[in-house]
Amino acid sequence: MSKGTISILGLGAMGSAIAARLRETGYATTVWNRTAAKTEPHVKAGAIAVATISEAAQASDIVVAVLLDHASVRENLEPAATELKGKVLVNLTTTTPNESRATAAWAADHGITYLDGAIMAVPAMIGRPGSRLLYSGDENAYAITKPALETLGATDFEGTDAGLASLKDMALLSAMYAMFGGVLQAVAMMRTVGVPATQTARDVTAWLSAVVPLAEPTVAVVDSGEYDPAPGQDVAFTRTAVRSLITAAREQGIGADFLEPLVKHLDELAATGRDTADWVSVIEQLSIAD
Amino acid sequence: MSKGTISILGLGAMGSAIAARLRETGYATTVWNRTAAKTEPHVKAGAIAVATISEAAQASDIVVAVLLDHASVRENLEPAATELKGKVLVNLTTTTPNESRATAAWAADHGITYLDGAIMAVPAMIGRPGSRLLYSGDENAYAITKPALETLGATDFEGTDAGLASLKDMALLSAMYAMFGGVLQAVAMMRTVGVPATQTARDVTAWLSAVVPLAEPTVAVVDSGEYDPAPGQDVAFTRTAVRSLITAAREQGIGADFLEPLVKHLDELAATGRDTADWVSVIEQLSIAD
Ligand SMILES: NC(=O)c1ccc[n+]([C@@H]2O[C@H](COP(=O)([O-])OP(=O)(O)OC[C@H]3O[C@@H](n4cnc5c(N)ncnc54)[C@H](OP(=O)(O)O)[C@@H]3O)[C@@H](O)[C@H]2O)c1
Ligand SMILES: NC(=O)c1ccc[n+]([C@@H]2O[C@H](COP(=O)([O-])OP(=O)(O)OC[C@H]3O[C@@H](n4cnc5c(N)ncnc54)[C@H](OP(=O)(O)O)[C@@H]3O)[C@@H](O)[C@H]2O)c1
Repeated sequence: MSKGTISILGLGAMGSAIAARLRETGYATTVWNRTAAKTEPHVKAGAIAVATISEAAQASDIVVAVLLDHASVRENLEPAATELKGKVLVNLTTTTPNESRATAAWAADHGITYLDGAIMAVPAMIGRPGSRLLYSGDENAYAITKPALETLGATDFEGTDAGLASLKDMALLSAMYAMFGGVLQAVAMMRTVGVPATQTARDVTAWLSAVVPLAEPTVAVVDSGEYDPAPGQDVAFTRTAVRSLITAAREQGIGADFLEPLVKHLDELAATGRDTADWVSVIEQLSIAD
Repeated sequence: MSKGTISILGLGAMGSAIAARLRETGYATTVWNRTAAKTEPHVKAGAIAVATISEAAQASDIVVAVLLDHASVRENLEPAATELKGKVLVNLTTTTPNESRATAAWAADHGITYLDGAIMAVPAMIGRPGSRLLYSGDENAYAITKPALETLGATDFEGTDAGLASLKDMALLSAMYAMFGGVLQAVAMMRTVGVPATQTARDVTAWLSAVVPLAEPTVAVVDSGEYDPAPGQDVAFTRTAVRSLITAAREQGIGADFLEPLVKHLDELAATGRDTADWVSVIEQLSIAD
């Protein structure tokens, strides 16, 4: 017996994985995709394909959107606002916090209950260990959809500001890309002496696994704001250390691009007499650039 | 019975931990420190204190230097070159690769057998699980000193180029500081909505622990050099993703400084028609800045 029907809008790599997982766990699925051909394997697996989002909205009380971006969400959902009224719309499309908030406001204007989501997983991880999805927006919509959402991965409700799931997604991805920048920096340095990238990556992986747990004690000073004198490593020491990393890269004939933002901020702190402050106070220097 | 005598030059936080660990594992120690008062606790624990590096060199066949930086090593060892002749000098002071090579050349000129080292640990970790030290330079010196060095932590011999241990040290530290930059970026974004730094750090730690293992498959393309078409994530997708992270930060009123180097390189690649290339090809853009 079906646990209920869920409509999925968007059958790209991620939407397909989600639709398949929902069926696997006992939900009936109605599917829509801009390019209709992509519905075929889903229909073979038991889904009902529809030609418009209005039909998809009529078919289920829960509508899950997994489109490309904010523009594709707005452009496609707007014409189906009437049929979406009274439904729960779960938007798993990646958007910025303000885009999520804009869609939430639009939904509220049209009597649509809105839950925003962010997927911290790749399609192959959906429904498997390690998959995690973040949600924010209407708390009641979260309660209603949670049994279905939990089949996709661990769920976290971040708060009623619809932008919070996206914000945390973006914060975590920022940390990931910065970390990968550091991996590339290390790989670039080691290949100047002929060490293969995969070997350096293995060394870096072991090292980062050991130091990632230091993040929490290192940033604790941000919450107190009492940077000076430094409870941890100070600006002067860190500046010398990071400058020697840049020197090492240059000695080997390459730049140390991924360390430039840090050294720039440490230089600014040193120039304004903050040598004895905790180096983590560079966080106070983050400002809007043009 | 003593396993032999080792002289330690420098009793700062790290030199003290090393001297203590060597005694604990059965070595007799002779210690020297610029500020003589720091030898006192070591003498109480059984060490012999000497007033000059020449005396320290005469006391042992193995001399371990743990001074502040390259300048302090050169300035202090130069006057003792005659007494160091025929000895094994293990220099654990943090230096750049070229500084290590310079000290190796100086040692060779004076008949001193030279081993350079880099400590991937903090003083409290010395002799404990997780402590790792990298060595490079004279292979015979490594063989002779290995039983003693192994008491400090896991040992790796990187090669006969004396700069290699320092280079790997600097590469790993570069990855660490870049990663910490990303942690600060995430913390800065989340605190705009009142999330404490330590809470964000916990979330980031869990997330980075999950994605750090992706480093090796991600950079494998560097070894083949066949970036286009992308075996992994391409420039166009990554550029859109990183630009949305920057937008998200700015929406919250802060900058995304730690992502700037990456987006700058992705922009350069896009501008030169490399949209379909693997994003990891940014590594080819690392160049010497002024
Ligand atoms: N893949 C991942 O690893 C991953 C991880 C986390 C989050 N996400 C997010 O999940 C969402 C979907 O990603 P994906 O990997 O499934 O991408 P994808 O494979 O490229 O699929 C994109 C989907 O969006 C549809 N689409 C694009 N532009 C459209 C438009 N203007 N109007 C209507 N439909 C449009 C496509 O329809 P057509 O078939 O007609 O082109 C397709 O269904 C994105 O927001 C992505 O950021 C993906
Ligand atoms: N601490 C760590 O976590 C760590 C980790 C990895 C590597 N290291 C490396 O280990 C080395 C020592 O670090 P540390 O933590 O022990 O530093 P520290 O506590 O500041 O001690 C510095 C030592 O260097 C001596 N020194 C400084 N300038 C000198 C000079 N011009 N002439 C003679 N001696 C001088 C100091 O002597 P005085 O007592 O007379 O000042 C002291 O013995 C550094 O290269 C550091 O990068 C440290």
